[in-house]
Amino acid sequence: MTTRREYDSFGPIDVPAARLWGAQTQRSLRNFAISTERQSVELIHALVLVKRAAAHVNHSLGLLPADKTQAIIAAADEVLAGLHPDEFPLAVWQTGSGTQTNMNVNEVLANRASELLGGERGEKRLVHPNDDVNRSQSSNDVFPTAMHVAATLAISLKLLPALSRLHTTLEAKSRAFADVVKIGRTHLQDATPLTLGQEISGWAAQLAHGERHLRAALPHLSELALGGTAVGTGLNAPKGYAEAVAREITRLSGHAFVTAPSKFEALASCDALVHAHGALKTLAASLMKIANDVRWLASGPRSGLGEIAIPENEPGSSIMPGKVNPTQSEAVTMLAAQVMGNDVAINIGGASGNFELNVFRPMVIHNFLQSVRLLADGMNSFNDHCAVGIEANRARITELVERSLMLVTALNPHIGYDKAAQIAKKAHKEGSSLREAALALGYLSADDFDRWVDPTRMIG
Amino acid sequence: MTTRREYDSFGPIDVPAARLWGAQTQRSLRNFAISTERQSVELIHALVLVKRAAAHVNHSLGLLPADKTQAIIAAADEVLAGLHPDEFPLAVWQTGSGTQTNMNVNEVLANRASELLGGERGEKRLVHPNDDVNRSQSSNDVFPTAMHVAATLAISLKLLPALSRLHTTLEAKSRAFADVVKIGRTHLQDATPLTLGQEISGWAAQLAHGERHLRAALPHLSELALGGTAVGTGLNAPKGYAEAVAREITRLSGHAFVTAPSKFEALASCDALVHAHGALKTLAASLMKIANDVRWLASGPRSGLGEIAIPENEPGSSIMPGKVNPTQSEAVTMLAAQVMGNDVAINIGGASGNFELNVFRPMVIHNFLQSVRLLADGMNSFNDHCAVGIEANRARITELVERSLMLVTALNPHIGYDKAAQIAKKAHKEGSSLREAALALGYLSADDFDRWVDPTRMIG
Amino acid sequence: MTTRREYDSFGPIDVPAARLWGAQTQRSLRNFAISTERQSVELIHALVLVKRAAAHVNHSLGLLPADKTQAIIAAADEVLAGLHPDEFPLAVWQTGSGTQTNMNVNEVLANRASELLGGERGEKRLVHPNDDVNRSQSSNDVFPTAMHVAATLAISLKLLPALSRLHTTLEAKSRAFADVVKIGRTHLQDATPLTLGQEISGWAAQLAHGERHLRAALPHLSELALGGTAVGTGLNAPKGYAEAVAREITRLSGHAFVTAPSKFEALASCDALVHAHGALKTLAASLMKIANDVRWLASGPRSGLGEIAIPENEPGSSIMPGKVNPTQSEAVTMLAAQVMGNDVAINIGGASGNFELNVFRPMVIHNFLQSVRLLADGMNSFNDHCAVGIEANRARITELVERSLMLVTALNPHIGYDKAAQIAKKAHKEGSSLREAALALGYLSADDFDRWVDPTRMIG
Amino acid sequence: MTTRREYDSFGPIDVPAARLWGAQTQRSLRNFAISTERQSVELIHALVLVKRAAAHVNHSLGLLPADKTQAIIAAADEVLAGLHPDEFPLAVWQTGSGTQTNMNVNEVLANRASELLGGERGEKRLVHPNDDVNRSQSSNDVFPTAMHVAATLAISLKLLPALSRLHTTLEAKSRAFADVVKIGRTHLQDATPLTLGQEISGWAAQLAHGERHLRAALPHLSELALGGTAVGTGLNAPKGYAEAVAREITRLSGHAFVTAPSKFEALASCDALVHAHGALKTLAASLMKIANDVRWLASGPRSGLGEIAIPENEPGSSIMPGKVNPTQSEAVTMLAAQVMGNDVAINIGGASGNFELNVFRPMVIHNFLQSVRLLADGMNSFNDHCAVGIEANRARITELVERSLMLVTALNPHIGYDKAAQIAKKAHKEGSSLREAALALGYLSADDFDRWVDPTRMIG
Repeated sequence: MTTRREYDSFGPIDVPAARLWGAQTQRSLRNFAISTERQSVELIHALVLVKRAAAHVNHSLGLLPADKTQAIIAAADEVLAGLHPDEFPLAVWQTGSGTQTNMNVNEVLANRASELLGGERGEKRLVHPNDDVNRSQSSNDVFPTAMHVAATLAISLKLLPALSRLHTTLEAKSRAFADVVKIGRTHLQDATPLTLGQEISGWAAQLAHGERHLRAALPHLSELALGGTAVGTGLNAPKGYAEAVAREITRLSGHAFVTAPSKFEALASCDALVHAHGALKTLAASLMKIANDVRWLASGPRSGLGEIAIPENEPGSSIMPGKVNPTQSEAVTMLAAQVMGNDVAINIGGASGNFELNVFRPMVIHNFLQSVRLLADGMNSFNDHCAVGIEANRARITELVERSLMLVTALNPHIGYDKAAQIAKKAHKEGSSLREAALALGYLSADDFDRWVDPTRMIG
Repeated sequence: MTTRREYDSFGPIDVPAARLWGAQTQRSLRNFAISTERQSVELIHALVLVKRAAAHVNHSLGLLPADKTQAIIAAADEVLAGLHPDEFPLAVWQTGSGTQTNMNVNEVLANRASELLGGERGEKRLVHPNDDVNRSQSSNDVFPTAMHVAATLAISLKLLPALSRLHTTLEAKSRAFADVVKIGRTHLQDATPLTLGQEISGWAAQLAHGERHLRAALPHLSELALGGTAVGTGLNAPKGYAEAVAREITRLSGHAFVTAPSKFEALASCDALVHAHGALKTLAASLMKIANDVRWLASGPRSGLGEIAIPENEPGSSIMPGKVNPTQSEAVTMLAAQVMGNDVAINIGGASGNFELNVFRPMVIHNFLQSVRLLADGMNSFNDHCAVGIEANRARITELVERSLMLVTALNPHIGYDKAAQIAKKAHKEGSSLREAALALGYLSADDFDRWVDPTRMIG
Repeated sequence: MTTRREYDSFGPIDVPAARLWGAQTQRSLRNFAISTERQSVELIHALVLVKRAAAHVNHSLGLLPADKTQAIIAAADEVLAGLHPDEFPLAVWQTGSGTQTNMNVNEVLANRASELLGGERGEKRLVHPNDDVNRSQSSNDVFPTAMHVAATLAISLKLLPALSRLHTTLEAKSRAFADVVKIGRTHLQDATPLTLGQEISGWAAQLAHGERHLRAALPHLSELALGGTAVGTGLNAPKGYAEAVAREITRLSGHAFVTAPSKFEALASCDALVHAHGALKTLAASLMKIANDVRWLASGPRSGLGEIAIPENEPGSSIMPGKVNPTQSEAVTMLAAQVMGNDVAINIGGASGNFELNVFRPMVIHNFLQSVRLLADGMNSFNDHCAVGIEANRARITELVERSLMLVTALNPHIGYDKAAQIAKKAHKEGSSLREAALALGYLSADDFDRWVDPTRMIG
Repeated sequence: MTTRREYDSFGPIDVPAARLWGAQTQRSLRNFAISTERQSVELIHALVLVKRAAAHVNHSLGLLPADKTQAIIAAADEVLAGLHPDEFPLAVWQTGSGTQTNMNVNEVLANRASELLGGERGEKRLVHPNDDVNRSQSSNDVFPTAMHVAATLAISLKLLPALSRLHTTLEAKSRAFADVVKIGRTHLQDATPLTLGQEISGWAAQLAHGERHLRAALPHLSELALGGTAVGTGLNAPKGYAEAVAREITRLSGHAFVTAPSKFEALASCDALVHAHGALKTLAASLMKIANDVRWLASGPRSGLGEIAIPENEPGSSIMPGKVNPTQSEAVTMLAAQVMGNDVAINIGGASGNFELNVFRPMVIHNFLQSVRLLADGMNSFNDHCAVGIEANRARITELVERSLMLVTALNPHIGYDKAAQIAKKAHKEGSSLREAALALGYLSADDFDRWVDPTRMIG
């Protein structure tokens, strides 16, 4: 592998010639050979988008010449279009400010911009990673800014649409099964009936609330640290820069951002992400409930509840037909557990800032973006491969509701509580139906029973 | 201890004659001798308030006669006024629907109402725990309702005021120290200066955001399950009851509540509490950061940072004057850790509903109310015994900022980056001041140094 | 309320005359009015036991006269016998070293010892809280010592016996149901059969492992910090004191303790408790699995799995006989969730030591002892009110296993995989039994079917 | 991309011709497009090792012919040697039993073995994924077995050596700084002195305990589920197979494994991993304490504690010499937070088994192996790039200890407590040294002061 020699304030270091990154990225690779987690592509793209906006604003403020500005913007657009995916190799487990990833982006954009201007990559490049690409920025403000941008876009572009799709599916299922009267269950025990549509409407309502929780988390995330520079005072950032760059990021992303009212809060805490992840963990709790209900209702084929059928997507058992393992539910419950674990990691990181900076940032955003990906992809997968195909096992549902002892409550107004209870006790003891027990006791006629004991009138 | 004999569907059971509770409470005491945690008084009061509202609405709908209604309301008012505090002895660790605590409240109110009507307590009571006090209710809807009411009132009446007080104090301190220029610190390392007022303004901004997070959690909490009865269908609840009872609870409490649009979601999930606790854990993370900053800034007296002084509230060391242990910070960081632990318990409970009911309810609300109490009391204590007394050690702060090498950045525009760096390196190596190093190198005059190197112009 | 005036280095403070505590306890009550959690009685007793041992050793080393020694020991024995339960009112949320609770114990023992010597309580007492009761100790070593003693005794005296009881019950149930062949379930789906005894033997094996995990946690807990004094160097502790006091605590408690090889580790970390709680959270996970299995197997009465019956301990539903809510399972799963939450709080506290001391101690031990109490009491309650009464619903179990399609695997060796699969598919499609489908297809005789398809030969 | 057509019980599916995997792997790729996490290479290799052992034992029991056995073993050895790294593309988020990854391994080994025998890959292969590679196995026993093998090897081969290296370094540093007397700190406040060597010995003792915790977790992990097959009864597993395969895995891996005494526990729980991760989270807590101490002691260069110097590995600040960001500490504290988050995910997964199987397995092992990698790599990185280079700033340390007021305790035996306290108070108030204050008060001579106030005699 051929290399080129680059320099930073530590002296020379050899960088693979084929790579756009520079000395500081290379040094980080040496110093942080820790596990396999890399900075998320969503975060890299957000950083690049912020750099693009900063270049634009720097130019408009007379701080960056037109040619360099255009080159940086063009280089940024290449990365945003998916080019150069292998140029961002750094570990999550690096400096807690994300400085090294910031420099990685600076180096790649500088080298690429230099090439676009007809120059070289490396020491003789025409665009400087710090003086040009990082101009009017500090790792301490640009990295938190990219975290908020990445989180906002991930929620808006990936998570909310996925949530909406699953919500739509569940609403449709709720309507489709509006007439399917089934046994209710509380404490896992038989209870009064409701419709399958009502049961599913509860799941849909959970998701509708989940959407509101997510939207309520966006305003804090929309606040950008950029302009605070090293410690929040904005030293060396030009006047008007913070507001202008927030406007440009809004324009580029199509999502509303503002400059943070308190740059000190924006640098020293990760509170916006700690709070927003509170909405993610709530969604995880909702999905765990929904996915568990689905797999329990689909349990069987002979010895489970068996009230619904779910799509069979892969071989469950080579010998046993009808054994449809609820694998989509399993994936969802596993990822929900992961999101709850991620929440703890984010809480600890978020609580661990000191003075002017929080240095648990790469870990926090790594977990945050993983949670969004898990929930979004998980809901899409669950929707496409499970929820859309849920069918009611109407015969089984009817069988269960009909033999339920809970329907006896319908007799109270007609024959009184005591006789109704006697009927239920007899049926339970003998394993007979309520109807059989009622007629055997002679408390009412068969006609009365059929008229009065009607689960369809017990569902509100 | 004298007892009276009571009965439930299980048969007779002896209850202490002095107690207002009845058979089902007594049975729960026998069956759940688990640890020392009891249902929170906030929850009991919320349940009683809901019972009071339900009695009123039941009467208005013709379901409860005036005398019983008045007696139940009077009994409820006694409990809400703080009477009968020992009548609610049940463990948190009981049935997961809270049924036994619901019955405890029903029994106490029924017995007390009976006495107020001139009757007895016990089997001959004039008011029935189920038929009268629990009328138009099920444990499955009334307990979740009380959880939301208790959580809302605890946030509104205890937490938000405590947060506001501490916020006000920090804002005042921020203004008071607006002119105290100090060294900034990032990565725990010296950085460019800011004012102590700016540093504290970051803490205040965290709390301001915390308040917004809490307020965004209230709408979901305002949704009441009451009217859903056993499984969410509202079986046996009269028409109009759900809306009327929400209005009455609003009137009684002075806080806005609505009937839940989806009773199925309201019974089967604890999502509103899972989400609201996400705001609590974020506040815990903020407070941990603030309390840590305070104790680090106050560290010393000789070998720490020593930039601020905090009140000395108790003997720290009998021999060493000046050793002021930051005990309020320690209490706050401990309780913040507890809130983060509670969050996990709540997440697991919230995710564990099945079908029509979540049966982790007493655990969820116990943790929620404990978190609110810890945060509210903790902020009040930290405010009164620490924050209000924070003083700047101006001499120490000035000494540190003056000997900082970071101020060299101010020379860049005048003598260029390279010479500035040389000065800083020389000072660092020799342990001298920047001024000494600058003059020794002859790059500028003493007058120029004093004019240019002015930390007060580096703070934005 | 009459008061007496006491003094500490802060000056005078009025203490209720009826109380044995002194100035520092009173001051802590003022300064830490935070929530309702009080230091656990187990911790107070462990502190008192350590004080008793220290008095003995101090006397033997010539540091404490015989009369004071005897008085302190007598006072300690009173507390250990359950007297003076209201004399330890301090909050968990106090100084993170537990200093105030240490002083609370010193003050109570000093005042009570003084009275036993014929003296007064208060300023004129004959025994000094610091110079006598706290002699050769520092809060920094005596509080961690008491934490280890309390944790060890709680595990040994409460948790292991409760675990053993439940294990014995489950082993007995496993034997009792050794012949009850039932359907197995994986992915909640029907699988090949096993016996109910085998299923329960898995639960018993979980507990047996849990016991080993607990015992493996004891050695680290047996290491005592005492003798390290303020920072671990043992300044002012007499030679031989550390070893002698560990021996005396061993003698008094009947459990083996040693002096910690590294006092620095013992003061600055809570690692032994963080690790031991890892065994507690594992036990919580085991119990959640067991309790969930129990309530699912007992679900019904008509629309659940219904394979076992559990004791009915309280009214489940007033109208529906057979609805036995699995309330003991619910209590266990709730407390298991709590233990998992406590684990996080302990982890954060344990990770947050600085330099020579960890100051999250009261929070850590509060959670630890709560977890032990929850698990011990929870297992006892679950054992007595549920596990001992588990019965097999043999008819239901047989019905399910007989109609299972999974038994078709037994035909493979006889008629080949393809024909066996055909039989199963037909039965599944038509809702018939395997036997019916097999005979309809004509692949084997009724006699062959009955001989070959024998679940009792599929259970290993 | 050319494809070949493969079949499973669902029908045909096109697989990339270049790939060794088969139909079920391809189907899983379609059905589980969830996030970016793939099954860990450590897990894949453990599965392959188990397959290799099973092939050997199957052959020895007459269940697999020699040629197929040799081919499977040769194919397995290729994978174990690092070949075919891209053949295991499946997501963590799949079926909770890991069936699809088991089939992925079966398919790859079958196709590759077929090629080694001169056959094709795909439908006409000479070795069957299920009948040959998976012989005498079920996903339900082979996947848990691989989890235990992977966890054991990761701890033994990666984590313990890394821990030992860091422990050795800290021990050496402890010895090297055995004579460096420094100020102690409790509550972040100045306390009595100790040596830097003693302080570091506490860190080393934490790691020594951490090693014991890890070793205590290995016995449970050494128990292998293999032989339990589908539900733990061992249906279709030949007699003696379970024991033989455990011996063969022991031989191949060089680490001791045994067949699980309870296959029911081994399939239905993840308790061994939940427990072992309790040791990992404890190690994380220890490392967070150590890494925090290091960065605080290295804080400065002018306004921090500044007692130690740590290696400068990368540019910290372009302008400020001496600003050495403690980036290795930051990486360690971030990954420690991650391990604590992973612990929660594992706890939830481990608690969520039902009946005969736990279906949170891929998530559990993913988190477990990530934690091991983080801790092992993190300790190696911290060791090599930080701990080995820790130097004492002796001048600074001496300055701090000399000006400490805490040394006054040494005067107590000579001039009495009251005069000593007066000296300290005067020094504190005036900002003077103890010596100056003592002499000014005239309580002792300069010679006496210098003889009596000697920090080197206060360190035990």
